[in-house]
Amino acid sequence: MAGGTKRLPRAVREQQMLDAAVAVFAEKGFRETAMDTIAAAANISKPMLYLYYGSKDELFAACVNREGSRFIEAMSTGFDPNLKQRDQARTVIYEFLHFVDTNRASWRVLYRVATAQSNFTAIVDASRARLIEMIADLLRRGTTVEATETDFELMAVALVGAGEAVADRITEGDIDLDSATDLVFGMGWHGLAGDKKVTGEHVSQIG
Amino acid sequence: MAGGTKRLPRAVREQQMLDAAVAVFAEKGFRETAMDTIAAAANISKPMLYLYYGSKDELFAACVNREGSRFIEAMSTGFDPNLKQRDQARTVIYEFLHFVDTNRASWRVLYRVATAQSNFTAIVDASRARLIEMIADLLRRGTTVEATETDFELMAVALVGAGEAVADRITEGDIDLDSATDLVFGMGWHGLAGDKKVTGEHVSQIG
Repeated sequence: MAGGTKRLPRAVREQQMLDAAVAVFAEKGFRETAMDTIAAAANISKPMLYLYYGSKDELFAACVNREGSRFIEAMSTGFDPNLKQRDQARTVIYEFLHFVDTNRASWRVLYRVATAQSNFTAIVDASRARLIEMIADLLRRGTTVEATETDFELMAVALVGAGEAVADRITEGDIDLDSATDLVFGMGWHGLAGDKKVTGEHVSQIG
Repeated sequence: MAGGTKRLPRAVREQQMLDAAVAVFAEKGFRETAMDTIAAAANISKPMLYLYYGSKDELFAACVNREGSRFIEAMSTGFDPNLKQRDQARTVIYEFLHFVDTNRASWRVLYRVATAQSNFTAIVDASRARLIEMIADLLRRGTTVEATETDFELMAVALVGAGEAVADRITEGDIDLDSATDLVFGMGWHGLAGDKKVTGEHVSQIG
């Protein structure tokens, strides 16, 4: 096999193939992506691509796993015990939206493409469940509002849902990250108080 | 064609077929559903099912359209101009979660099955866009908090995302509808104020 890339270490070549695959899957979706296109984008032969990843399904699973790990790692910046819980919550939301803004292909693969493939929804659901648990824990430790375990979990579910929806919108346009962070943060921080403890009149005064 | 159902009016029979199809698609997903199973569940012959709906894709599209309309109709109860905007917002959220709770198969078809089929995501996206516009409008008219058009729209995006995530959780267990409504309502109503105008100390006093 000729070619200038031959002497690259295996690990580097693997990452190059995944970079190419993420970009192509993000653009074309799962079904419309051809292994030929990925091989061409990664500048290797198709047999080599199959040798490394076995099948389109396995290659896609490798993409989802890598991007999922990168995503969770980016999130974890916010879980710094030296920060006040309030600042942790804010940082997690910011890092979430920032990750999406600067890794649009990655987010599209995780959120749009993987969720549209019924055999990959389990992987996405597992990542989401992990994130929800992290957020519920932050809320539990970071608020003085009285709430049950179910309230904290449901709020985390709602916040992750809100965050995903906002993130998806971020990939489509140019939304200001700080405003979006304020908005999602405000939903979580004040939303826990619910309707029972804060009145509409009260909110009117805020504005 | 023999059979006791022959004298049913066409419209009634169509609805029976759709009822059966929604139940089967909700349980098995799109790919795993066989037209035979739907025909059996609807108590008609497979050729008859094809005669009415043409193909599995068209039958599924008919399910998504019908359930989407039922969903939007249930939502519209909340958009009663005799209600204060605040009560409208609360009613819309309650009706949303109530619809999901009492129409689990319908919600599964719309949220889980249709979103997992890349050729149906456009239909789901269109319904979602309509709902987001309705919610943004309520927020715009119902709050005295100063916010830009983008803020209202982004808040509506976030709320719909939060509502979908909570709804999905509702189909999995027995979450109290009133608590869930309070939670999502609180997120929207107080979240618009963001972090800029309400301090953490303030929130602590609420609890």
